[in-house]
Amino acid sequence: MKEQKKIKNKTVYLDFASSTPVDERVLSVLVKTTKSMYANPSALHALGTAAHLGLEDARKKVADALGAHTDEIIFVSGGTESDNLAVLGTVRAFQKKYPKIRPHIIVSAIEHAAVKSAAEELEHLGVDVSILSVDQDGLVDPKNLRKLIRPETILVSVMLANNEIGTIEPVQEIAKEVRHARRHKDAQALVGAQYPLLHTDASQALNYVSIVVEKMGIDLLTINSGKIYGPKGVGALYVKRRTPIAPIMFGGDQEKGLRPGTESLPAIAAFAEAVSITESMRDKETVRLTKLRDYCISKLEKLPYSIRINGGMKDRLPNNINITISGYQSEMLVVYLDAQGICISAKSACKSTDPENSHVIEALGYKNTDSESGSLRISLGRGTTKEEIDYFLKSLVHVLNLLKK
Amino acid sequence: MKEQKKIKNKTVYLDFASSTPVDERVLSVLVKTTKSMYANPSALHALGTAAHLGLEDARKKVADALGAHTDEIIFVSGGTESDNLAVLGTVRAFQKKYPKIRPHIIVSAIEHAAVKSAAEELEHLGVDVSILSVDQDGLVDPKNLRKLIRPETILVSVMLANNEIGTIEPVQEIAKEVRHARRHKDAQALVGAQYPLLHTDASQALNYVSIVVEKMGIDLLTINSGKIYGPKGVGALYVKRRTPIAPIMFGGDQEKGLRPGTESLPAIAAFAEAVSITESMRDKETVRLTKLRDYCISKLEKLPYSIRINGGMKDRLPNNINITISGYQSEMLVVYLDAQGICISAKSACKSTDPENSHVIEALGYKNTDSESGSLRISLGRGTTKEEIDYFLKSLVHVLNLLKK
Repeated sequence: MKEQKKIKNKTVYLDFASSTPVDERVLSVLVKTTKSMYANPSALHALGTAAHLGLEDARKKVADALGAHTDEIIFVSGGTESDNLAVLGTVRAFQKKYPKIRPHIIVSAIEHAAVKSAAEELEHLGVDVSILSVDQDGLVDPKNLRKLIRPETILVSVMLANNEIGTIEPVQEIAKEVRHARRHKDAQALVGAQYPLLHTDASQALNYVSIVVEKMGIDLLTINSGKIYGPKGVGALYVKRRTPIAPIMFGGDQEKGLRPGTESLPAIAAFAEAVSITESMRDKETVRLTKLRDYCISKLEKLPYSIRINGGMKDRLPNNINITISGYQSEMLVVYLDAQGICISAKSACKSTDPENSHVIEALGYKNTDSESGSLRISLGRGTTKEEIDYFLKSLVHVLNLLKK
Repeated sequence: MKEQKKIKNKTVYLDFASSTPVDERVLSVLVKTTKSMYANPSALHALGTAAHLGLEDARKKVADALGAHTDEIIFVSGGTESDNLAVLGTVRAFQKKYPKIRPHIIVSAIEHAAVKSAAEELEHLGVDVSILSVDQDGLVDPKNLRKLIRPETILVSVMLANNEIGTIEPVQEIAKEVRHARRHKDAQALVGAQYPLLHTDASQALNYVSIVVEKMGIDLLTINSGKIYGPKGVGALYVKRRTPIAPIMFGGDQEKGLRPGTESLPAIAAFAEAVSITESMRDKETVRLTKLRDYCISKLEKLPYSIRINGGMKDRLPNNINITISGYQSEMLVVYLDAQGICISAKSACKSTDPENSHVIEALGYKNTDSESGSLRISLGRGTTKEEIDYFLKSLVHVLNLLKK
């Protein structure tokens, strides 16, 4: 295949939902902290104390960004661990307190693999799991949640923004339903007024959605450094005070006993810096990327191909475009576009080797057929320019024409 | 308290067992990889493929250092997670296959908190746990292991080198006992010839002990970047081929399905570099530090105080000194020595806030008394000089005299 001329001969990265490059200021914090704060934050000597203070500074930065108390931030190794700790940890705490009640949890149909698979594991271990469906736009209906809640429902997990189709879920409305259920007398008699708890995965949301945990009524919230221009391998779980939760790993007393292991301070400090930076850039980037996204979508809609936008346009991350092109296999398009220097994804990266269709696209009511297979996620980010979008559009047309022959 | 003059007015760090500074070459790999390989290693495009290759390069480096196959290296978030995956993951896999057999595991009395606490958690979940005692030198006796093994014993976990007293355990002899047990007909009939499995935590050992997993007869081995001059927050579990093990977190398909979550490639690449460097420095550093350690101990023994060396001198890490000084509280000494610019630990850092005595020192047969409380761990490393040891000795005498008054 003859290659088209590439923009400035460099790669056009449109896969920011899969991984973000590390911000330069974040990297400099990582390097500086690596050099200056190498001691164990739990050590009692001066260097240990300095590391401990560095850790608590980072915790305060993250807490401030979420409107949380510092003691509500638990540092973990990333979004997947944060989701697992939220789902498995709350169930474990419940089972310890109420060994005779079979717990019930509710997760949305479009959760990230971490929540979805943790829930499936719990199902094997005797926990009842209900799936909260989404409409064709990819949104959950809080009214449907009310129908699923039982007296023994202890956890509801609905992500704040979806990683594949970018839909922003009505978490605040969901929180109202959860609070309504807590006031229900049957539930109070059975499991106490603190259940069900509400967890939301905000890994994809934090760049574009302002989060105030108390106001939103969230008990547990997942954030992930690797999706906000911070280093990979670090993240946090917000745990509202008095939320019953047990650790899923065991060892030292770090992170209030909820997450053992020497804290990876340099990465944590860099993560906190990334949180602060994304806070400060949020409004501007939201405006800028919404324009770029809508420009790209309007151009896609005018192409002489049958292109479906997956997920509604109303409540959607400004950086997300997800399409299915009738008659074209998405994996094939990813590979052909890659030859043009364009990096995009077919479904989420962590499931890229899985031959199955995306559970998110299926939840919208679409089935894989021969003529319509998979989806393309084009996710924009800090570096993305109109020039790059134009190059992507031109390359897409080129590849579609090529494959038609 | 009047401060003594400090060496070159800088801190004397003698807490390398608690945390190692990051090697400069390692840091440069971390920075380079952060900049160049920011894509998700699971992404299908060119940048994802490059990241995937970087990940597999790192895996090969680590595998080569241990004499393992690349597919036997599972990257995790550190030593604690590696220990937890080994202990909880093997038990979970067994329980899935043999839900009706109550499994039995054996851990040594001086394991790191990660193994110890994971075993305690399993005890709450209906697993039988036996403790393999150590002698006053801190060494397990493989003959004692034989007495503890039952037909339903599925795991033995004995660390390669202890984090507090530096004793190097006879893991190869233990492996012989484990293999002996596998041949036992009762066990084979009950749980198959692959049990018991042998896990060893080599977090503290890797800097000084050459490891060839096959030759040593190990099924599962824990290593930790933060103890070998690599970045914190990354480590690995060696899992011998065909070892039955289940994940303890759930999500994407990464790391052969054993450890979900986007791989933190820059940290992993830096960790692999740290493994290579420590391999190349091992012999020289072992000779150098053994001399320094023995020099320090001989000087300590000549002081007019009652100083006990905890742990035998024969099989001991070259960088470890652990002492109890009669009549002095160890936490107090740590704080007073800190005022002299000296960083050492009383027991392990991850249990530093725990008011209890070290379980390791207790396992040697020593009890806390009013006159003899706790222990001091002085752990040497790459930067340690004779000048620093002399300054430590001088400062210790100064502090002991001061506290006597």
